[in-house]
Amino acid sequence: MNRQTIGKKTWVIVGGHIPLHSTGHEPECTSFDQLCVLNTTDREAKLSITIYYADREPVGPYPLKVQPRRTRHVRFNDLIDPQAIPLDTDYAAVVQSSVPVVVQFIRQDTGQAAKALLGTLAFSAG
Amino acid sequence: MNRQTIGKKTWVIVGGHIPLHSTGHEPECTSFDQLCVLNTTDREAKLSITIYYADREPVGPYPLKVQPRRTRHVRFNDLIDPQAIPLDTDYAAVVQSSVPVVVQFIRQDTGQAAKALLGTLAFSAG
Amino acid sequence: MNRQTIGKKTWVIVGGHIPLHSTGHEPECTSFDQLCVLNTTDREAKLSITIYYADREPVGPYPLKVQPRRTRHVRFNDLIDPQAIPLDTDYAAVVQSSVPVVVQFIRQDTGQAAKALLGTLAFSAG
Amino acid sequence: MNRQTIGKKTWVIVGGHIPLHSTGHEPECTSFDQLCVLNTTDREAKLSITIYYADREPVGPYPLKVQPRRTRHVRFNDLIDPQAIPLDTDYAAVVQSSVPVVVQFIRQDTGQAAKALLGTLAFSAG
Repeated sequence: MNRQTIGKKTWVIVGGHIPLHSTGHEPECTSFDQLCVLNTTDREAKLSITIYYADREPVGPYPLKVQPRRTRHVRFNDLIDPQAIPLDTDYAAVVQSSVPVVVQFIRQDTGQAAKALLGTLAFSAG
Repeated sequence: MNRQTIGKKTWVIVGGHIPLHSTGHEPECTSFDQLCVLNTTDREAKLSITIYYADREPVGPYPLKVQPRRTRHVRFNDLIDPQAIPLDTDYAAVVQSSVPVVVQFIRQDTGQAAKALLGTLAFSAG
Repeated sequence: MNRQTIGKKTWVIVGGHIPLHSTGHEPECTSFDQLCVLNTTDREAKLSITIYYADREPVGPYPLKVQPRRTRHVRFNDLIDPQAIPLDTDYAAVVQSSVPVVVQFIRQDTGQAAKALLGTLAFSAG
Repeated sequence: MNRQTIGKKTWVIVGGHIPLHSTGHEPECTSFDQLCVLNTTDREAKLSITIYYADREPVGPYPLKVQPRRTRHVRFNDLIDPQAIPLDTDYAAVVQSSVPVVVQFIRQDTGQAAKALLGTLAFSAG
């Protein structure tokens, strides 16, 4: 497998929902939804993210760059341009990339007494 | 990737089991099994859900609509027609859609002192 | 999608490890590794499970039947013939089925003060 | 399915991040990121792991062997040659194998009062 071709250009995350509350010390125990991207190629990956909601039109594109041979783990809380994603709201995300990448989704929820984790591969649509 | 074709029309969730107990404040800390669907197309997605059990015939179809360019996160507890899914009972679900969608499954269990989360892509059967 | 053909005949679970300890009331809060199977076909699914270990030869086959149009969620603790799977030991499982099925894996670990959950699709090898 | 061909030769894990803190008794309640591999073939699997970071060049290859008909669950903390993976740091991993294998990823985080678990299939790139 040539590392220039590891991955796909379109990825989908469906169960987005940034938790409202956090407990514990910052930043290790903050609640967050996280987008994890790996770019194994020798070219910069130009990502374009569209956020879908339950009751209004999609928002985007949110641009994101991942340098060659780098991984980037971004909290959805930090996607603020063109518009911050509201907390405690159902959303989904479609990630389109200029080069093949691999995408995983992680939620950390510390809203009750202890940490809860959720992790899954995104769906690779092509 | 044309967003009219992102996803599949048949999805399967196997490990269903709505937790019996909840702790913490409502609604954020309720226990639930959740079906998360994204419809990126410009047409309404007409879903037909069949619930399979361990010891009796399947029940369904449960109809569910997802508007164009919308995501919908539905608790299995809220699927009550033709028949509510009993708590604390093993089940599985087959989701058929009129247009391509992406489906993820999330469980939140707050039955002990702190939240536990489980999340996974559904199996795309075609 | 004809429900006679939903799924695959070979599935793989890699991260098996039955937790040693449990806390909380039985049976809801027991620790366990669970194999979840859905058989949507009209024929009985005859499963043959092989358990792989880190330091000795594989054990099996463990037979398991899933009736037509039924789901079955089985704790690995309950697979005892030809030989019980030891607790607190790394293992993996290959599931072969006579008809197409869908397989998911769930771990519930209540060994500390609160429940932890892990869930993932098995790998469909064909 | 011939067990000589179960799996793939290239696997990708994206959301790596070894937790900084642990609570509870060792070793059952240590925090860790874990690579789980199953080799169902009759040949030794020679793995070559490359670790990608957010802000520097990839490190590797880390060699790892999995005997025929064995599973091996390795903590990323234990990959120390050519260089230990730092704690509390985002990383991703590409696993290349000489024979087909199946790879899953598990995180156990005991940094708060109770255990949190995350488990997902790795992405099979070919």
